[in-house]
Amino acid sequence: MALIVQKFGGTSVANAERLFNVADIVTKTYEQGNDVVVVVSAQGDTTDDLIAKANEINTNASKREMDMLLTSGEQISASLLAMAIEKLGFPVISLLGWQAGFVTNSNHGNARIKRILPDRIQKELDKKNIVVITGFQGLNRYNDMTTLGRGGSDTSAVAIAAAMNADLCQIYTDVEGVFTADPRKIKGAKKLDVISYDEMLELASLGAQVLHNRSVEMAKKYNIELEVLSSLTRKPGTIVKEANKMEKMLISGVAKDTDVARVSVIGVPDKPGLAFKIFSKLSAKNINVDIILQSIGRSGTKDISFTVPKSDLQDALDVLEPYVEVIGASSIVYDDTVAKVSIVGAGMESHPGVAAEMFEALYEANINIRMISTSEIKISVLINTADADRAVEAIHDKFFSGEFPMK
Amino acid sequence: MALIVQKFGGTSVANAERLFNVADIVTKTYEQGNDVVVVVSAQGDTTDDLIAKANEINTNASKREMDMLLTSGEQISASLLAMAIEKLGFPVISLLGWQAGFVTNSNHGNARIKRILPDRIQKELDKKNIVVITGFQGLNRYNDMTTLGRGGSDTSAVAIAAAMNADLCQIYTDVEGVFTADPRKIKGAKKLDVISYDEMLELASLGAQVLHNRSVEMAKKYNIELEVLSSLTRKPGTIVKEANKMEKMLISGVAKDTDVARVSVIGVPDKPGLAFKIFSKLSAKNINVDIILQSIGRSGTKDISFTVPKSDLQDALDVLEPYVEVIGASSIVYDDTVAKVSIVGAGMESHPGVAAEMFEALYEANINIRMISTSEIKISVLINTADADRAVEAIHDKFFSGEFPMK
Repeated sequence: MALIVQKFGGTSVANAERLFNVADIVTKTYEQGNDVVVVVSAQGDTTDDLIAKANEINTNASKREMDMLLTSGEQISASLLAMAIEKLGFPVISLLGWQAGFVTNSNHGNARIKRILPDRIQKELDKKNIVVITGFQGLNRYNDMTTLGRGGSDTSAVAIAAAMNADLCQIYTDVEGVFTADPRKIKGAKKLDVISYDEMLELASLGAQVLHNRSVEMAKKYNIELEVLSSLTRKPGTIVKEANKMEKMLISGVAKDTDVARVSVIGVPDKPGLAFKIFSKLSAKNINVDIILQSIGRSGTKDISFTVPKSDLQDALDVLEPYVEVIGASSIVYDDTVAKVSIVGAGMESHPGVAAEMFEALYEANINIRMISTSEIKISVLINTADADRAVEAIHDKFFSGEFPMK
Repeated sequence: MALIVQKFGGTSVANAERLFNVADIVTKTYEQGNDVVVVVSAQGDTTDDLIAKANEINTNASKREMDMLLTSGEQISASLLAMAIEKLGFPVISLLGWQAGFVTNSNHGNARIKRILPDRIQKELDKKNIVVITGFQGLNRYNDMTTLGRGGSDTSAVAIAAAMNADLCQIYTDVEGVFTADPRKIKGAKKLDVISYDEMLELASLGAQVLHNRSVEMAKKYNIELEVLSSLTRKPGTIVKEANKMEKMLISGVAKDTDVARVSVIGVPDKPGLAFKIFSKLSAKNINVDIILQSIGRSGTKDISFTVPKSDLQDALDVLEPYVEVIGASSIVYDDTVAKVSIVGAGMESHPGVAAEMFEALYEANINIRMISTSEIKISVLINTADADRAVEAIHDKFFSGEFPMK
């Protein structure tokens, strides 16, 4: 007998038919002799509908009241799922985040889980109940409802799996797993059977939004084995686990990120400490800098380029423009028609040819590389947005259809 | 400075415009220097919509899960009202039933309030917050959400007014107060400025559904002054208070109840204890018997007639039919085309002419009286359903338009 946590996203519980599909998955798992804790998101567009209702009244409502409003969404889906499970004849109870023991800090709208006190869940499991929990929410020390922000329900699922030392945490979603590239765009995209936490983190940060980074980081920290799978097709999905437990894939996937802009500070004097000053200014404004490139400019100066999310571009320019003169640089230029394309793979550190293969693929597709950044398990290039889809396809073909050794 | 509890029903908070209307009433009360505790129902048809959602999945869902589902309705309206009050620039906080300290028994779907621990409400009032509370709900000793059943939000409001010793409890609804008859049907119907708890109780039980009996009983028990008024017209409503605090009205109102059926057990032998046996059988099945009449039948037997709610008619027949032979009665007959019309007034006990006036009104309208029942402050007659509206009109005319002394 194992303890299995199963999380179902909003599309998986969107209506009565889907709820019964979920109830079927859950009760089959229970019938196999497992303890089952189910974590649910709000149904379909419920959260968006509630936000629209709030905006009709007050676009500047306090986050505390927004949390009070939004937590009703999972309350509805959890109780409805419990009713569907009852209908199938199984013992079940639904619990709100606070009843399930989720204690968070007071950062309304984006709260962090401080601890989980799973006594009530354990008591219900001991009574042989299937336990359905509202994801995305908890209670702060003042007894106020909080929500966990983006990826909150995944985080709830991994957190409860960690707190209760679950054997497996299944994240049911509307895709069949983690693919080598976006399967809606790249025909040859293959589902991965297994991927490491670090690879998953790199892919997620690149816009392959199967799992939110926060939940993967937590799974890594507590060594919780995740399975990403579809609630509709019922095929085995992708296991996310520790790298040392698996044969390393050379390349796990190719991803693109178009939410990126490049900023260059031109003609920075070649004196120590100026780069530090630039990036500490940006950091103070919470601007998330990604790829950084420093190149030799004209007559003893340097050009410092970096990428930021598009939404931070204006802030970055506002911070730096008054500063150009102070440090004696000549100008700032930016480009928001760029995209980042990356390959991720835990095995590439022992295979030096990977970068060359990637660049060759881009060369053959006649795509110009603007910046390059590498880590142990990732190689990213900055290219023109217009080339992004072609670039993903060319790189994917190179690694997943060609002769290149996959392992 | 006073402490005022204001309760708003579902139609009063049905949409953004109405919520701002309520926010305006609440903040004006607050601006006059009062502490304000607001109790809200779910918006418009929300509760019915949630029940429909549940029925789509499981028409036999556990009451515990139904409560989990339904409590989300007030959560949504309370947080939206708080947002509207924020928008008007006032300090406000919404609290769920359990946060507001409502402790109930475990009778899901129809829970009773055991006690209220209003520490959190008081703390928020001390911080000068307007406090918005979800009506209709509480928490049982197992930390599970419960709902209070019909009239639950009114009961929540009166209970919190009692627990906090409020100066006034205003029940905002979609009518302007308590009327001498249904104002949609009787042209001359007048709004009462004041009515006693007992009169209100009699009227409510007669189908004048302005306030649920449960809340009036609680108000009477704790001597909480109620005001029933409209959230839309903003006129003074009807005050409900102790009879000894007011000049007694002879007649407060005329009401009809068409949810009634008459059952007669014919030819009951004239032996002691048989009436007791009949009514104890009905009582054991929770059948609510109202008017009872015993008349002399043929050859030393009696006919025992009584009224029951239409929904209990079949049960009453099922209980009694096998019993007819046992007690030696001859048959059972019933009539579900009857209606009960009543007049209520705390002053009638000292004015013996009231019944005669009522019967005269019916005689003049050529309406046949089938049964009569009286209490200190009420006279009810059973007539044919087809005559009911005419009967109310005739009686109302007699007492409220004629020469008869009103006081």
